[in-house]
Amino acid sequence: MIVEGRNAVMELLKSDATIDKILIDKTVKDHLIDKVKTSGIHYQFVEKAALERVSDSGRHQGFLAFVTDFNYAELEDFIDKEVILILDGVVDVHNFGNIIRTAECMGVGGIIIPKNRSATVNDTVIRVSAGAAAHMKIARVTNINQAIEKLKKEDFWIFAAEADGDAIAKTNLKGKVAIVMGGEDTGVSALTRKLCDGVISIQMHGKVNSLNVASATAMVLYEINRQR
Amino acid sequence: MIVEGRNAVMELLKSDATIDKILIDKTVKDHLIDKVKTSGIHYQFVEKAALERVSDSGRHQGFLAFVTDFNYAELEDFIDKEVILILDGVVDVHNFGNIIRTAECMGVGGIIIPKNRSATVNDTVIRVSAGAAAHMKIARVTNINQAIEKLKKEDFWIFAAEADGDAIAKTNLKGKVAIVMGGEDTGVSALTRKLCDGVISIQMHGKVNSLNVASATAMVLYEINRQR
Repeated sequence: MIVEGRNAVMELLKSDATIDKILIDKTVKDHLIDKVKTSGIHYQFVEKAALERVSDSGRHQGFLAFVTDFNYAELEDFIDKEVILILDGVVDVHNFGNIIRTAECMGVGGIIIPKNRSATVNDTVIRVSAGAAAHMKIARVTNINQAIEKLKKEDFWIFAAEADGDAIAKTNLKGKVAIVMGGEDTGVSALTRKLCDGVISIQMHGKVNSLNVASATAMVLYEINRQR
Repeated sequence: MIVEGRNAVMELLKSDATIDKILIDKTVKDHLIDKVKTSGIHYQFVEKAALERVSDSGRHQGFLAFVTDFNYAELEDFIDKEVILILDGVVDVHNFGNIIRTAECMGVGGIIIPKNRSATVNDTVIRVSAGAAAHMKIARVTNINQAIEKLKKEDFWIFAAEADGDAIAKTNLKGKVAIVMGGEDTGVSALTRKLCDGVISIQMHGKVNSLNVASATAMVLYEINRQR
């Protein structure tokens, strides 16, 4: 879906919509540009001709946004499930799509992502998920830590997956569990980690010893199912 | 590395070098083109100007190949190891790079890939592997089934990872094991599967129930290590 025009894009920024990208006429001066820049949404300055080519109505006024129609869930929609995945800053769309695919195969009840600093469910993610995105409940929350507090009230045990924790095979992952996986570059943020009931680790046997987040998620979800 | 010229590219095709791509002047007629087409190597017909831009010497004669300097191993270089991975037709470079990364972290002794119908270790694979490719022994073999026979003589147990096998958590994966992972579209080929001592499966709990090969490999390697 394409949203065009200065005010429409301004409203879009305030909404819950999933904005994949915003195109801005490089010759335009407007304080909306600052709002776009601080929004964390992917944006690009382009020639006016590029806007014209994409525009449906021709009334873009220098701003045009690509919006994905993916229907996000609310945390409440899947808080009754057994296993929940929290992605704390996974920004690569291939990783995100892959994680959704694996999570669906492993029976995960829902995925929580933050509204900022996260890949969103765009066309690439849906494609990489191989159809799994249509079957997975994904909630975008303003604050991951508040979501964790909610999960704790519902008797979830919260585990962060990080390099320096307890061996996952020796950790009891039965019952209601939520797993926090950190982003590609940032890992689990310090404050979020403090909120967790435990830190779990995959034992490493190599020299590089840095797993891709989608591969690490696969291993954690496998182990959770193995214990059940 | 770039290799230019009709004869140089012809020789290259006969060698063990890893050819990432061959560019061919679209106006050239030569029976070498048929050889390239049947080689299984990625090729592209381009304008002469495109060859000129890439050429170092200007003496491309209509043929130019990009070669990766990756040093492949021989199967004999790691046949004394405990865990070996066999990729039967993994063609996606992101999956291949990711599998190398995971395998290195999980202490895999070496990876076997076929010379045809497989991604090779090119620049993208090396980048996606996050440095792990430099620490992983990878052997390209003409025939995977012959490699399996060799492994059997060295007392390896060979398992194919497929959808309809025994639950991996209930299969004994200790000792010397080699795991065959099938390609993205093809799975493990029928003849190779027949040579295996067993077929192992990851239990599924969703609707889509099709794992990405890199994620499936992560789970299998995790389980192998867990049992040790």
